[in-house]
Amino acid sequence: MSHITVLGAGSWGTAMAKHLVDNHQKVTIWDRDKKLLQEIKKGRNPRYLSTVKIPSKEINVEGDINESLKNAQIVIIAIPVQHISEVLSQIQKNSFINKDIVFVNLSKGMEINNRKIPSKIFEEYLSGFNYCTLSGPSHAEEVAKDVPTSVVVAGRDSQVNKYIQEIFSNETFRVYTNNDLIGVEISGAIKNIYAIGAGIIDGFGKWDNTKAALITRSLVEIIRYGTYYGGNKETFMGLAGIGDLVVTCTSSHSRNRYVGEMLSKDMPLKTILEQMVMVAEGVYTAKAVYNDAKEKEIEMPIATKIYQVLYEGVDSKTAIYELMTRDLKSEFFN
Amino acid sequence: MSHITVLGAGSWGTAMAKHLVDNHQKVTIWDRDKKLLQEIKKGRNPRYLSTVKIPSKEINVEGDINESLKNAQIVIIAIPVQHISEVLSQIQKNSFINKDIVFVNLSKGMEINNRKIPSKIFEEYLSGFNYCTLSGPSHAEEVAKDVPTSVVVAGRDSQVNKYIQEIFSNETFRVYTNNDLIGVEISGAIKNIYAIGAGIIDGFGKWDNTKAALITRSLVEIIRYGTYYGGNKETFMGLAGIGDLVVTCTSSHSRNRYVGEMLSKDMPLKTILEQMVMVAEGVYTAKAVYNDAKEKEIEMPIATKIYQVLYEGVDSKTAIYELMTRDLKSEFFN
Repeated sequence: MSHITVLGAGSWGTAMAKHLVDNHQKVTIWDRDKKLLQEIKKGRNPRYLSTVKIPSKEINVEGDINESLKNAQIVIIAIPVQHISEVLSQIQKNSFINKDIVFVNLSKGMEINNRKIPSKIFEEYLSGFNYCTLSGPSHAEEVAKDVPTSVVVAGRDSQVNKYIQEIFSNETFRVYTNNDLIGVEISGAIKNIYAIGAGIIDGFGKWDNTKAALITRSLVEIIRYGTYYGGNKETFMGLAGIGDLVVTCTSSHSRNRYVGEMLSKDMPLKTILEQMVMVAEGVYTAKAVYNDAKEKEIEMPIATKIYQVLYEGVDSKTAIYELMTRDLKSEFFN
Repeated sequence: MSHITVLGAGSWGTAMAKHLVDNHQKVTIWDRDKKLLQEIKKGRNPRYLSTVKIPSKEINVEGDINESLKNAQIVIIAIPVQHISEVLSQIQKNSFINKDIVFVNLSKGMEINNRKIPSKIFEEYLSGFNYCTLSGPSHAEEVAKDVPTSVVVAGRDSQVNKYIQEIFSNETFRVYTNNDLIGVEISGAIKNIYAIGAGIIDGFGKWDNTKAALITRSLVEIIRYGTYYGGNKETFMGLAGIGDLVVTCTSSHSRNRYVGEMLSKDMPLKTILEQMVMVAEGVYTAKAVYNDAKEKEIEMPIATKIYQVLYEGVDSKTAIYELMTRDLKSEFFN
C-alpha cells in the first residue's frame, strides 16, 4: 500500500482518489477550499462530481498542504494549469519533502502567457524530482463509475513509469507506458482547442462526417506542433493523442466542447465562462498556441480559426465555410 | 460537364448521384433492381435513403448495365463488396467500353473467401483501366443533406486523382488526394470490424472513455495490418484511416456499429443480419482479416475478440474484460 496525496479536489482529482482507494491505496486529498473538503468527507463532491458516492471513510482530507504531503510517496497534481505554479511554489518551500516522491500530473493545458506545459512548470520549482504525466481518454465522471478506461503514463524514467502503471492499473483502468513526456503533454493541452471546434459543429447539428474530419485534420495540426517540440509522432496516434482528442470532441462531459456549442449559438465568450463551474483549459491554450504557432510559422488553420472565433469575433459558421473552401490539396502531413 | 454512371442505387450510390448533380454533372444510375430505379425516378429511394429528396429530373436511371455505360467518362462503383466481382464480370464483356474511363470505387470491405480489397477485385476484370477509391468519413445520409464532409481520393495516378478531386469537390464536400491506394482500401475495410466493437460498447452504456480507447488501440491494429501489405502509416492517420474509423464507431448511421449493439444484447448474429436491409461489411471482413492475420502472425487482439464474439459464441462482456486485463505494456506500435 502506498501513501498517495492528491492535490486538487476537482472532478479528476476526486475521481482519481476514489479509484486509488478502490485499488487499496492510502489516499489523502488536499484542496485550498476547505468547505469542499468537508463535503467530500461527507461522501459527495457536490460541485465537481455530484453523482458519485465517494468512499469517504477511506479518504483523508487535509487543508494544509504541508501536512498533506507528510509520508506521501506519490503526489498527484490535479490542479487547473493556470494555478499549478502557485501550488508548486508552496511545495518548493517545504524542506521536509522526501526526494523519492513520485509526482504524477493529471492536468492538461498550457500557461497562457509563457506557454508552458505542466512538466515545464514543474521543472521551475521541483527540478530533480520524479515526475510523470498520466493522460488519455479518461473523463472523471466515467472513471469514478468504473467504466473501462485506458490511459498512458509518460515520464523520462521507465522504472518510474512502470511503478505508476502497477499501482494505478486494475481490471477497469488499463495503464500503458510511454517515454515521450513532451508529446503526451502537448497532446493533452492542444486537444482542448479542437474540442471547442467540435462543440461548434454540435451546435449546428449532429454532423458526424464534419466532426470526424475535424478530428482527423486536427490530428495533423497536433502532429505538426508536437513534433516541432520534439514529440514522437507515434505518441499523437496513441491514447494521449488521438484517444483523448476523440473523447474530448465527442463526449457530453467535455467542458471545452460545451464552450464551442455555446459559441455557435452566438453567446459571448465572457458570458459562457462566467456561467461555468469548471475550467475550460482550451480557451487559454488556444491563445497560447495561436501566438506560438504564428511565431514559429507552424501551419494550423483549424486552431487559427478557433482562436479567431474565440477572440476576434469571427462568426463560427463563416469559420467552417472558410476551412472547407481553402485550396484543394493532397493529404500530406507537413 | 462529365458523364458519370453510378453502379448501385444503395444509400451511398444514391447520395453520390445527388451530390454530383448538385455539382452540375450529368448522372446515370444503374442498379439490377428495376423497381428501385423507378422509385428513384419518382424522387425517393425508400429502401436506402428514404428521408432525402432526389433531384430525379436531372438523374437518368438505366436497368441495362451496358446501356448505362455508353458515353460514361466516370464510372462509380457503389456495390456491396461481395457482389463487385459479379458486376465487373458483366462490364468486362462489354467491348465498347472507353479506355479513358475513370472508375471511382466507393465500396469498403474485403471479399470474405479470397480476402481481396476492391482494387484487387478490379484488377482481375479491368486491369489497365484508370481506377481510384474515394474514402473517408462520409455517411451517405449526411452527404445527401450537404453536411460538410471531407474525404480522400486515392489512386496510383496523381493526375487522375486531381481530376476526380476537381469534379467531386464543392463547398460542403472537400476532397484531398493521396497516392496510397492500398492503405486507403485496407483502412476502409478494416474499420468496419472495429465499428462492431464500438456497437458492443454502446450496448453496455454510453462509455465514452472505453470507446475512445477502442478507437485508439484499433488504429494500432489497422496500422500493423495495413503496413504489412505496404500501406503508408500516414494514410491510417488520415481521413480514410482514423477519420472513417471515428465516424463509423460513433455515428448512429453506422450499420456495423448497430450489429455490435445488438450482439451486446445477446441477439444471435443470424437474427441480426436477417432483420437488416443494408449490408454490414464488417461481419465478412472480420472473418477474412481474422484468418489472414492468424496466418501472417499479425497481432490483432481486438479484431480477434470481435471475431470470437461474432463466430465462436464468446460473450461480449467477457471479451471486454479479457482485453482490459491482458499483460500491462508500453504503448508501442509493433
